Amino acid sequence: MLPDRAIVEEISNTIRFLAADMVQKANSGHPGMPMGLADAASAFSFHFRHNPNNPQWLNRDRVVFSGGHGSALVYSLLHLWGYPLTLDDLKAFRQLDSKTPGHPERDCTKGVEVTTGPLGQGFANAVGFAFAAKRGRALLGEAIIDHKIWCFCGDGDIMEGISYEAASFAGHNALDNLIVIYDSNDVTIDGALDICFSEDVAARFRAQRWDVIETDGHDFERLDRAFSEARNQTKPTIIIAKTKIAKGAASLEGSPKSHGAPLGKSEIAASKLKARWNAEPFYIPQTALAWLRTALEKGELYEREWNDRVLRSDKKPLLDKLLNPDFNSIQYPVFDDSPKATRDTNGEIINAIAKALPGFFGGSADLAGSNKTELKGLGVAPLGANIRFGIREHAMSAITNAIALYGLFIPFDSTFFVFSDYQKPAARVAALTSAKRFFIWTHDSLGVGEDGATHQPVEQLSTLRALPNFYAFRPADGRENIVAWKTALTLDAPSAFVLSRQALPALPSSAAKGDPSKGGYLISLSKQARITLIASGSEVALALAAKDILQNDKIGANVVSVPCFDLFVEQDESYIETIIDPDTIAIAIEAASGIEWFRFAEAVVGMESFGASASADRLFDRFGFTPDRVAELAKSLLAESSV
Amino acid sequence: MLPDRAIVEEISNTIRFLAADMVQKANSGHPGMPMGLADAASAFSFHFRHNPNNPQWLNRDRVVFSGGHGSALVYSLLHLWGYPLTLDDLKAFRQLDSKTPGHPERDCTKGVEVTTGPLGQGFANAVGFAFAAKRGRALLGEAIIDHKIWCFCGDGDIMEGISYEAASFAGHNALDNLIVIYDSNDVTIDGALDICFSEDVAARFRAQRWDVIETDGHDFERLDRAFSEARNQTKPTIIIAKTKIAKGAASLEGSPKSHGAPLGKSEIAASKLKARWNAEPFYIPQTALAWLRTALEKGELYEREWNDRVLRSDKKPLLDKLLNPDFNSIQYPVFDDSPKATRDTNGEIINAIAKALPGFFGGSADLAGSNKTELKGLGVAPLGANIRFGIREHAMSAITNAIALYGLFIPFDSTFFVFSDYQKPAARVAALTSAKRFFIWTHDSLGVGEDGATHQPVEQLSTLRALPNFYAFRPADGRENIVAWKTALTLDAPSAFVLSRQALPALPSSAAKGDPSKGGYLISLSKQARITLIASGSEVALALAAKDILQNDKIGANVVSVPCFDLFVEQDESYIETIIDPDTIAIAIEAASGIEWFRFAEAVVGMESFGASASADRLFDRFGFTPDRVAELAKSLLAESSV
Repeated sequence: MLPDRAIVEEISNTIRFLAADMVQKANSGHPGMPMGLADAASAFSFHFRHNPNNPQWLNRDRVVFSGGHGSALVYSLLHLWGYPLTLDDLKAFRQLDSKTPGHPERDCTKGVEVTTGPLGQGFANAVGFAFAAKRGRALLGEAIIDHKIWCFCGDGDIMEGISYEAASFAGHNALDNLIVIYDSNDVTIDGALDICFSEDVAARFRAQRWDVIETDGHDFERLDRAFSEARNQTKPTIIIAKTKIAKGAASLEGSPKSHGAPLGKSEIAASKLKARWNAEPFYIPQTALAWLRTALEKGELYEREWNDRVLRSDKKPLLDKLLNPDFNSIQYPVFDDSPKATRDTNGEIINAIAKALPGFFGGSADLAGSNKTELKGLGVAPLGANIRFGIREHAMSAITNAIALYGLFIPFDSTFFVFSDYQKPAARVAALTSAKRFFIWTHDSLGVGEDGATHQPVEQLSTLRALPNFYAFRPADGRENIVAWKTALTLDAPSAFVLSRQALPALPSSAAKGDPSKGGYLISLSKQARITLIASGSEVALALAAKDILQNDKIGANVVSVPCFDLFVEQDESYIETIIDPDTIAIAIEAASGIEWFRFAEAVVGMESFGASASADRLFDRFGFTPDRVAELAKSLLAESSV
Repeated sequence: MLPDRAIVEEISNTIRFLAADMVQKANSGHPGMPMGLADAASAFSFHFRHNPNNPQWLNRDRVVFSGGHGSALVYSLLHLWGYPLTLDDLKAFRQLDSKTPGHPERDCTKGVEVTTGPLGQGFANAVGFAFAAKRGRALLGEAIIDHKIWCFCGDGDIMEGISYEAASFAGHNALDNLIVIYDSNDVTIDGALDICFSEDVAARFRAQRWDVIETDGHDFERLDRAFSEARNQTKPTIIIAKTKIAKGAASLEGSPKSHGAPLGKSEIAASKLKARWNAEPFYIPQTALAWLRTALEKGELYEREWNDRVLRSDKKPLLDKLLNPDFNSIQYPVFDDSPKATRDTNGEIINAIAKALPGFFGGSADLAGSNKTELKGLGVAPLGANIRFGIREHAMSAITNAIALYGLFIPFDSTFFVFSDYQKPAARVAALTSAKRFFIWTHDSLGVGEDGATHQPVEQLSTLRALPNFYAFRPADGRENIVAWKTALTLDAPSAFVLSRQALPALPSSAAKGDPSKGGYLISLSKQARITLIASGSEVALALAAKDILQNDKIGANVVSVPCFDLFVEQDESYIETIIDPDTIAIAIEAASGIEWFRFAEAVVGMESFGASASADRLFDRFGFTPDRVAELAKSLLAESSV
């Protein structure tokens, strides 16, 4: 399958020295990994099925470079394969507004499937792509989906907990379409790998139900055979490729020093001399380029043939439905005025969405019963719609990110809100990549009750609100929950639903004249209000009760519900002033740290400590979340202000 | 080693039914795991060396129950062993202010070594205890430290990424003092384990260099042998104990339904009948109690013998030094006025601390060179002082938590600040347990530069400030960095140091008349100030430059440095008003999300998006962190306010 050895070598050196030159010109970056992987990347180029002219072609192979610091390798390959990335782009490596940032960013560069850099994320994303593809294949047939997922990873990815979780999930689900190439160079930043790592990686992956192929990462023929073999496995496959970091560097080959700093001009010159390579920076020999650019013709052929298959397939209507989900077809439930936990209303809503949209699916980290995320009657993924993620929150979220980015699906994942901490690194990547996917988090506050402080979120809402391009909804009742979903489905960004364990009274429907989709709105307007009570979720009913107490004392109070702080902040000042009257004293009430509420409120009734183990009612009382206490605070603030 | 089978069975049933009764009385909790593990816990009681009269005895065996939801088992055992936990305490299970919260909390209950609940944390804590003990043994000799660490864990712990990371670290470091008992009951909350998990766990642990013993978890003799054997291994050992969840429950044995809800009165009655057990709730037979309470006598003997050994040991002076660290003996470096990165000043400081305090040690997740955390000339832990954590941030922090709680050491860990996300679940446990330990986080902002958005923290400072009982310091120069350490060493809580990659100018020493240890202080006071500029870390110099611009325009501005927001918030209002003059317009400047600064400032110059890949200078300019822009904002706010 490979051309002559001399040609493959030339291709390898083209990749190798392009990457080294990029780092040198930027005077910043990581040459070691691209040079060490150049040989494997070269052989890989002849196995990778894609269409550089259409980076979005659905049935393309995906490749994830989990070690995002090897971005010079990624950009070199994309350029050489014929993606819209010019030599000038390569020369602008790591410069402001270039298409070639320090770590590969999906939104920035065509051909980059997912933003990588935080180690382990890409590995789990690859598992997510493979899971999505397996579901795509199950739904649409092999004629439409039969591609592979490739992932290059390094020692760092292999050591991160998320990669074990993801590998365990991949093995359990027999993801036969997943091929990981482990760049095993025995070197980390701090020195030789064996100062901190001594696992038998092959045995570990076999224990997780993977196939393992071991090879020399610089032997083209063995690599070629390994890639061919891996295409035909019935399990996920890891190719352990023993490599030398900075392979081809005159004096730094094998050295940790080559990891994160330019080689230096003299080292590059010496290396090129040794390889009898043209000393000119960014030199690309025509033969190597021509061979690599065959990807363009082959890609067009692949896609044309695939288009024919799609046209002949009886699954084409389903494919169209997956590609163009009709949000208007969702028949949302109608909630009456009986008290309900928002985890329950949310469960009804997502079942309604799943009924309308075949691409909507997801699951929980072993808490489907508590999270109320079971999609009833829809079976187990990848064939059905319910993903059994296992107790693997971190991988769950990185997998879900990739399912969202795959191109066919709108996925969600779920666990208790306090465990959003475990998912945070993946939530950040979701925000960075504008992944349209949903976090469902139940058990959102002290309302957790007896499970105690370890299970009661305090700081998590603030964490999410500080995260850019992320929308967290904390609805106060079922109706707000529906508006939250309708709004979230329009956003090209990740959204979260932060939901109560305990039943919440339905808000008076007559009172809701505002627009929850703007993040915050007035639910109760008093004449001559002197106080504004702002709350979200379970505390909205509390605010309404406090308002009644104040009213009895002839103190007018407006009540504002803020189901989505992130959206509310984005409204213009004039809207915000119609909601929070600047002439009133504003008090925010939320059973959470509340440090961000001072933006809108003079005082915050929030959590200044961790929670405790007791019934929810006793806890809300203990920590000051009672209508009386809120009303008293309002009165004392009024008294202060009139001094 | 075990008494007669009938007695061991009676002990098991005592534990089993006490736990079931506790959950039933609380009408909340998890009976399945305690009942399933009662047999193993019973046999374990005869191998566990401790002194219930002195839960702080240094050379006690430690036991960690990683599945904190099995707290009814923990409390039953502590009561039966003779710890200060009464039957009334057991009857107050999960009630407000009881000593028996829903998940075991270290600060609440004597004998609980560490707060558990978030799955996987306890497993990694056990590894941390074992690592600390191995270092203790290396420093003090086997006469003083020769105990074991035991850890009970379940399927959830085994699936969490952190447990793989921790196990890998334990295997690499040959922690021969660690014995994990894996309660392998093949049941999770959502159903049978095999819906989501199908690893060969024995092979996995062997691949990570552990010894593996497989046994029936209800066969006392085999358990007894396994515990004896595990005491004599040269590697960490996992005992895979096949158990039935809710063993002994009349109809719910083996059922996922027994996991997280009371069995119900009739089920308990039927179960007791089946076991010919006294139907009385909280029944404790005298023979069982007497056997278990031998722990008291044995504990006194163990400790007395140990005290003799300590007295005879030439290591006693070192032991005393470890137990009573003398913070006054630290010779802090003296920094001149040259610009330095705070990661560099911090590196000098921690080397000074390590020189003075033999118990101070730590390491990095493979970034020691970048984090500047190498303790020079002090060797590699456990024998030396530098821990090579590997690329395992999450386990690193849970391990460090346990090292702090072990009783001899003051540990730190380190990585890039953006990866604090990976550590967050462990940082939360650190705060919950008031662990005196230090997070060192470098590369704290846009100053990261070319590595780009994936590596530039934005929301992390807000996250930490929202976390109760946690102190994050972001010093502006080397001198503040010293005060930060001096302050942090006095706190009985975790602290963090958030440090710059880039050089920062030294603050004018003449200007610093305030007290950085109060979290925030005035560094520049103007006559007739109309503006207060508040900043931390790298933005303090920027605030000073903006002040100069304003001064040229005859606008007085005070400058406030807030090296620790968390401490500043704790000061009383009168102090805060002396620092931030309420008659000025306050502007906070921080290269971070800044959502919490509205508490003190009318306007915030912060990050509303992710960063980008370019040189640090270009990024600070792009995102508005320039003296000109700050001065302009101040002027426009002044203009507005005077309208």
